[in-house]
Amino acid sequence: MARRPPWAELGEFGLIGRVVDRLAAPPPPAGPGDDAAVLDAPDGRVVASTDLLAEGVHFRLDWSSPLDVGHRAAAANLADIAAMGAVPTALLVGVALPPDTTLEVIDGLADGLRDECSLVGAAVVGGDTIRSVAGLLLAVTALGDLQGRAPLTRAGARPGDELLLAGRTGWAAAGLALLQHRLDGFSELVGAHRRPRPPYAAGPQLATAGAHAAIDVSDGLLADAGQEVVAAAGHGALLDWELTGGDDHALLVAVPAGVRVPAARLIGRVQAGSGVFVDGHPAAPTAGHDHFRPGPG
Amino acid sequence: MARRPPWAELGEFGLIGRVVDRLAAPPPPAGPGDDAAVLDAPDGRVVASTDLLAEGVHFRLDWSSPLDVGHRAAAANLADIAAMGAVPTALLVGVALPPDTTLEVIDGLADGLRDECSLVGAAVVGGDTIRSVAGLLLAVTALGDLQGRAPLTRAGARPGDELLLAGRTGWAAAGLALLQHRLDGFSELVGAHRRPRPPYAAGPQLATAGAHAAIDVSDGLLADAGQEVVAAAGHGALLDWELTGGDDHALLVAVPAGVRVPAARLIGRVQAGSGVFVDGHPAAPTAGHDHFRPGPG
Repeated sequence: MARRPPWAELGEFGLIGRVVDRLAAPPPPAGPGDDAAVLDAPDGRVVASTDLLAEGVHFRLDWSSPLDVGHRAAAANLADIAAMGAVPTALLVGVALPPDTTLEVIDGLADGLRDECSLVGAAVVGGDTIRSVAGLLLAVTALGDLQGRAPLTRAGARPGDELLLAGRTGWAAAGLALLQHRLDGFSELVGAHRRPRPPYAAGPQLATAGAHAAIDVSDGLLADAGQEVVAAAGHGALLDWELTGGDDHALLVAVPAGVRVPAARLIGRVQAGSGVFVDGHPAAPTAGHDHFRPGPG
Repeated sequence: MARRPPWAELGEFGLIGRVVDRLAAPPPPAGPGDDAAVLDAPDGRVVASTDLLAEGVHFRLDWSSPLDVGHRAAAANLADIAAMGAVPTALLVGVALPPDTTLEVIDGLADGLRDECSLVGAAVVGGDTIRSVAGLLLAVTALGDLQGRAPLTRAGARPGDELLLAGRTGWAAAGLALLQHRLDGFSELVGAHRRPRPPYAAGPQLATAGAHAAIDVSDGLLADAGQEVVAAAGHGALLDWELTGGDDHALLVAVPAGVRVPAARLIGRVQAGSGVFVDGHPAAPTAGHDHFRPGPG
């Protein structure tokens, strides 16, 4: 007979009610007990993205608090929406809970999700909870509104475009390395791993400014620049972490020459052909983050 | 050093490409390599629902094929959308893969998701794959279009309304019991557990016909009828599985007296007060399926 989890006495509806109260979101058009949420999509299109975040693969609860994990799970998905030039509006969150999950952990996750959403005016509007046979897992889907803008996609960069970078790169990877090597200090780097700060406003700003293509730098600058249709020639001295570290959710954008927005800085240029060049030298093709490598476990 | 999974040689982008080819869906407005999908929402609203399905909790791969699991994961979410009176349009699918997952399993899941979506004209438009430290897990989010109809919610039934039931109840629960007790035969019941057949068309039909409230019977008829704002008085002889078995995704709908659609049959009436009555007797309050009970493991 399985041991009864601490949250089991609440029952599914009780647990959902507790989390819904915690989220303190404005009530969606359909109630929290309904089978689905009904959301406004005034643009006539909706942008949607989904990501999984698993304990032992993407986070460890001895390195990050439940509040951090909630923030990070929301940030990863909200950043994907912003990278398309859209404004995030809603999250749906599925959570798989191990039997020994405490209510403190559940409350921390809910608070982190809520607080990260509040940065962009979004809210958690639906979800699902199941018991997990292994670690904690969050499945987050984000929805967003293009507000009449054309979506920013990966395909669209043209030779002569300039490459702008919004947000930080390498901070989260450096923070993870500090945790892995049990090095103290550098709390801002460790904090960047625990709670990335994606440049949410940059995507819509750059879409409005006429950007040709954009990508969320979740796999490292070199790997994601290589996803562009044409090559990027970087310039300026960059540290290795800046080039290969993912998880800061920086935004790499190709714009017509001369286009600038406050949130982004010039780091390179698009050329015809393929490959990524740093200071004139081809970048190693194996650089970048592969999600299937053993994670922070 | 972790053993290299059979699908690791494909890399994340290779694996996504293989699955995308397999899904053979019409290309979404944004490409499969993009951070998010862009979907039409002509109604100006979008209906969204999310569900997790975990190996050892909701399914076992010795009882269900990967194709079955794909069908069932899609069906659970598509049914939630239809229960709101909407037509499902898109799925986003997150999959956590154990290291020993074969490509045959991945292909089966993709085929099942695709084939179930094709029953309602929907398509898989986005997703995420991660490695799992335990069993296989699917996180599915479904989106749908109300086509100008008011959403069907749980709240809205009125005394005097009639209760219609669309779809089957008890079949999937009986099928699961057969598998748990290692009983052969009754392939249609076992098939109902492996691949439920939700009455997808009934929700939009009943919304158009002026239904007041509806609920997807995923927790058993008695438990879900109790979720209605007022009580339901059932009539007619029903087997225990029909009353308490979930997972068939039948649709329970409160309609103004006399409203009928071909896909649903009359099973009761809404009265003032609270409680669920079967043949005039109060139903036991503990009846129904609790997702936190040990599942088919």
